[in-house]
Amino acid sequence: MSDSVPSPSAPGGLPPWRSPLSRALHRNRSRPYSRYFQLATVTPQGRPANRTVVFRGFALGQLTFVTDQRSAKVADIAANPWGQACWYFTQTREQFRLMGPLTLVTAAEEDGDRQQARHTSWQALSDAAKCQFYWPPPGVVRDLDAPLDTPLDTTNALDPTVPPPTFCLGLLQPTLVDHLELRGNPQNRTQYAYLDDGTWHTTVINP
Amino acid sequence: MSDSVPSPSAPGGLPPWRSPLSRALHRNRSRPYSRYFQLATVTPQGRPANRTVVFRGFALGQLTFVTDQRSAKVADIAANPWGQACWYFTQTREQFRLMGPLTLVTAAEEDGDRQQARHTSWQALSDAAKCQFYWPPPGVVRDLDAPLDTPLDTTNALDPTVPPPTFCLGLLQPTLVDHLELRGNPQNRTQYAYLDDGTWHTTVINP
Repeated sequence: MSDSVPSPSAPGGLPPWRSPLSRALHRNRSRPYSRYFQLATVTPQGRPANRTVVFRGFALGQLTFVTDQRSAKVADIAANPWGQACWYFTQTREQFRLMGPLTLVTAAEEDGDRQQARHTSWQALSDAAKCQFYWPPPGVVRDLDAPLDTPLDTTNALDPTVPPPTFCLGLLQPTLVDHLELRGNPQNRTQYAYLDDGTWHTTVINP
Repeated sequence: MSDSVPSPSAPGGLPPWRSPLSRALHRNRSRPYSRYFQLATVTPQGRPANRTVVFRGFALGQLTFVTDQRSAKVADIAANPWGQACWYFTQTREQFRLMGPLTLVTAAEEDGDRQQARHTSWQALSDAAKCQFYWPPPGVVRDLDAPLDTPLDTTNALDPTVPPPTFCLGLLQPTLVDHLELRGNPQNRTQYAYLDDGTWHTTVINP
């Protein structure tokens, strides 16, 4: 017997991997690592890149994170708009790998819903996190005489509800999700694939 | 003042990022997450791939992990032999990103030192970890009538010191290392680059 069956989105429109992911987030909620995942992209030179990003919740049905317009991942996404998030939960010993197209919502975004999501994400940031978007450009040689916490650009600083131009909201739209449970009997691994007809296909695969 | 100076390998030949990484491993040694990192590769289709792998220590001056010859990452590495490991330490709030060429040591390896490293890694595995290399092929539709723990191939099972053909040792040779310390004042970020002349160049960069 093999288990490979089309599984439509659950009532309410949530894809079938959302429920196990929500359960993992809940069961690991006391652990710091449940708040971030590792996001892989491909550089303009075709090499892999990987970094830890803080999970900022779901918006428009997608996983969100925030990034600086000047960071290397913005150039990666411009050259190759795909990402895979890898999220490992130590407490429950399970891993989610979420692959799909990546988009960035910048200050120039004209779509109202997406721009609203960017503003909402900005307003939810701590003051310390907001400050980083006023720091000198990330990744360039540091001037040790100029403290990072001296804002170089305070264009919008007078109105803390307005994100600065450096602030981008990143959106990952999963189209292929791999869920590995190391605590299975002996292990369980399930793949969720989004099909052209708009449905999700769930397959139990070998770990 | 900027801090961008060539820094030769330390006495003993260790690259300059090894000391901070060893310190992080020591300071986080009680935490499960210090035993694994997320490894990004690029698929044959040019998409990013990312998964958690267990750190199996250093061998031949490189980071090691083990993998099944039949796993998707083997095909990735054959098509694009580069990887970036992302290693986040929650306790000390620091991240290492280690980029460089990836190679696999298979049963066909003819170099004596590399084949010896493969055998040593196999012998260090737990019995449970060894069993997985006898399971049915990872990633394909699971036959729920055939328990995973029924070995399909026990070619070498009579001599547990000999790795089966499915067992590969993976080696990552870092050539660019990015160390981010979120607990800095306000944060610190250091980049280590391996140069063509065989030296390492250390640069303090903006976080």
